[in-house]
Amino acid sequence: MTVPAASFGRKHKVTVIGSGNWGTTVTKLVAENTRDHPDVFERDVQMWVYEENVTIPKDSPHYDAAIGDQPQKLTSIINKYHENVKYLPNIALPPNVIANPSLPDAVKDSTILIFNFPHEFIGNICKQMKGHVLPYARGISCIKGVTVTEDNEIELLCEYIGDTLGIYCGALSGANIAIEIANEEWCETTIAYNTPPCDLRGGANGNSAPSNGADHDHKDARGLVSKTKLTPVPADYPPLDHDEFQKLFGRPYFTVSMVSDVVGVSLGGALKNIVAIACGFVEGNGWNNTAKTAVMRRGMLEIIAFGREFFPETIQEKTFWEESAGWGDMIVSCTSARNWRYSKMAVERGVTVQEIERTELNGQKLQGISTTREVCGFLRARGVESKYPLFFAVDGILDGKVKVEDIPKLFRK
Amino acid sequence: MTVPAASFGRKHKVTVIGSGNWGTTVTKLVAENTRDHPDVFERDVQMWVYEENVTIPKDSPHYDAAIGDQPQKLTSIINKYHENVKYLPNIALPPNVIANPSLPDAVKDSTILIFNFPHEFIGNICKQMKGHVLPYARGISCIKGVTVTEDNEIELLCEYIGDTLGIYCGALSGANIAIEIANEEWCETTIAYNTPPCDLRGGANGNSAPSNGADHDHKDARGLVSKTKLTPVPADYPPLDHDEFQKLFGRPYFTVSMVSDVVGVSLGGALKNIVAIACGFVEGNGWNNTAKTAVMRRGMLEIIAFGREFFPETIQEKTFWEESAGWGDMIVSCTSARNWRYSKMAVERGVTVQEIERTELNGQKLQGISTTREVCGFLRARGVESKYPLFFAVDGILDGKVKVEDIPKLFRK
Repeated sequence: MTVPAASFGRKHKVTVIGSGNWGTTVTKLVAENTRDHPDVFERDVQMWVYEENVTIPKDSPHYDAAIGDQPQKLTSIINKYHENVKYLPNIALPPNVIANPSLPDAVKDSTILIFNFPHEFIGNICKQMKGHVLPYARGISCIKGVTVTEDNEIELLCEYIGDTLGIYCGALSGANIAIEIANEEWCETTIAYNTPPCDLRGGANGNSAPSNGADHDHKDARGLVSKTKLTPVPADYPPLDHDEFQKLFGRPYFTVSMVSDVVGVSLGGALKNIVAIACGFVEGNGWNNTAKTAVMRRGMLEIIAFGREFFPETIQEKTFWEESAGWGDMIVSCTSARNWRYSKMAVERGVTVQEIERTELNGQKLQGISTTREVCGFLRARGVESKYPLFFAVDGILDGKVKVEDIPKLFRK
Repeated sequence: MTVPAASFGRKHKVTVIGSGNWGTTVTKLVAENTRDHPDVFERDVQMWVYEENVTIPKDSPHYDAAIGDQPQKLTSIINKYHENVKYLPNIALPPNVIANPSLPDAVKDSTILIFNFPHEFIGNICKQMKGHVLPYARGISCIKGVTVTEDNEIELLCEYIGDTLGIYCGALSGANIAIEIANEEWCETTIAYNTPPCDLRGGANGNSAPSNGADHDHKDARGLVSKTKLTPVPADYPPLDHDEFQKLFGRPYFTVSMVSDVVGVSLGGALKNIVAIACGFVEGNGWNNTAKTAVMRRGMLEIIAFGREFFPETIQEKTFWEESAGWGDMIVSCTSARNWRYSKMAVERGVTVQEIERTELNGQKLQGISTTREVCGFLRARGVESKYPLFFAVDGILDGKVKVEDIPKLFRK
């Protein structure tokens, strides 16, 4: 039984690191919840914005003749008009969203850090945050992906964040499309948060632990004792467990399922992009929906096999089967998301996906391509290519060594 | 290790009962396989055709000026032109497909019976077959659905067939669209066949049993001893186990996965139609793909809950998660099949699905409607409505008692 929040002297301060389309969307819903749960959270939500100058177009309701075409700082625009005119236009943000161009200042004194920016910036941003984060802060990573370290080990992004900053970090992933959620169209998601033992207060997970400020061990994604020693959330804060994250992220239009399986949620969110590219290839090549579905199914089996092989102690298969972060995300990613759409376009136009990236995505990258490269490199180094025929088919097609026509053949008896 | 077929005096004779779009498609691929495996199967495949008179249109390559508009028997047309001009036009059938208007004659001496006709005819057709079927015949039902008996028990169609004819019957189900398979576009399916102990000859499943012609017990879908005593397949026939059904159904364009879980395959094939109707409603109502995916996921959880509750001894959840008959079929049914398409159309046009059946399906029925009615009636009688919110939402919408808008609300926290 959780102690009523009213009895706590302090409240959790929330910072969202990132302000793109998805980052701003998550900031919006989180700020709606800090407003609705004043007993647990401070009202204002800090949103770190990579500062840039933006010119408000004449046809915008925020166009100011006095300013005209003069570029203004994005943070000032957001704080003045409560709208991210560049990355989430025409969506009103709650006034308690505070855009902040200074990363150290934005994360100062925050107990809850939400990471939501493109994968490729993670190293640089974590480096800038180091030393400015509360030792007992806790994180949720909305960034989908896994990284392969220099010593060629697979690492979950939320683990990388946690280890770099010396905190614990969970992960959010699901069948989500930012703009739909920003428009408050209903969908659901999964949040994986394996509450550190030192933070348990006879709460949700039953067991209780002291909160004496000493460093505490916790298990990493492989079930081993983590190299990061955690500082417990001080007792004068409300506890941070599944109930509190449910309060922070759940909205009537955004149903949240809380689990403890950070491995399943992270792998599902990352590896499904490889499958989405395969589905785009197959569909672009004129194969029908039943063939695409077969590829999705085979892809899911390879994702689970990957989890079984490299996270045998902690893998929970039901996350893939039952959660939005599993089959749900797989379906949406293979029927209406970027990696699928642009790989399909590539085959239809008879060009490479890399070419489509250059011509259609002005600088942006398809997550699925780098994930395929990293994951296949990791698997190749271990000599287990034969267990992952679909992953390597995508890798081979990206290299021009495998034909799209060959994908279904992989599965023929 | 299976004994080489060469050493057997007799071969399996195959009859397909049904000659619609799906029935003719399955007959085509099965006949290709009996031709390719002469050691196990008799070459000719009998296809029972519900006889009718058909007029071949002038623009058909089979139009014969001498006959003109005179109606001809469908069986004669199929046997003469090797094409089912009415139900599978423009698809060449192998010449070893023999259309037969007499049900007793078509099933005479056949050891393998493939059931493939609309659900509603099953009682009548089985009654006509009774007494004409070999006691050691074995069946595969391609008919998706479950029935609720007079005493309000749930019954798998393959069980109903088996018990009515006094034989063992398995089930075929998957993410399949007949016309695509007829066109030899690649997809995959699942066949559930729980080989009766009396048919095992130290084969695939390891154990062996005598084949002395005596009646033998076997387990039903609930894991209880079946009321049907089986006559073993005589020893001078090749065995009938997973390998042989793989040979009979697997094609380069049709990948077959053999399992023993008749419950999972049957429930998946039947109950997914309820979910497909729900998805059509949600999508027709303007909800997006992520919401539809959430409904699919919730629907799958209700299907599994149903299996857990009513087939606790035999349910194998991985069939739903891993097989084409599970998630694969669910995805295709909710994105490109009849129940989904017409329920979506109903909401878009603001009319009932029953109305769409009348105006768009000239006499044909949407399987999902009767399945919803039967299954919800069955559940209501047991007072477990609250465990199946999605199933009952569909039932309520069909009754006009629930609004489509309310579906996503069911799942909001």
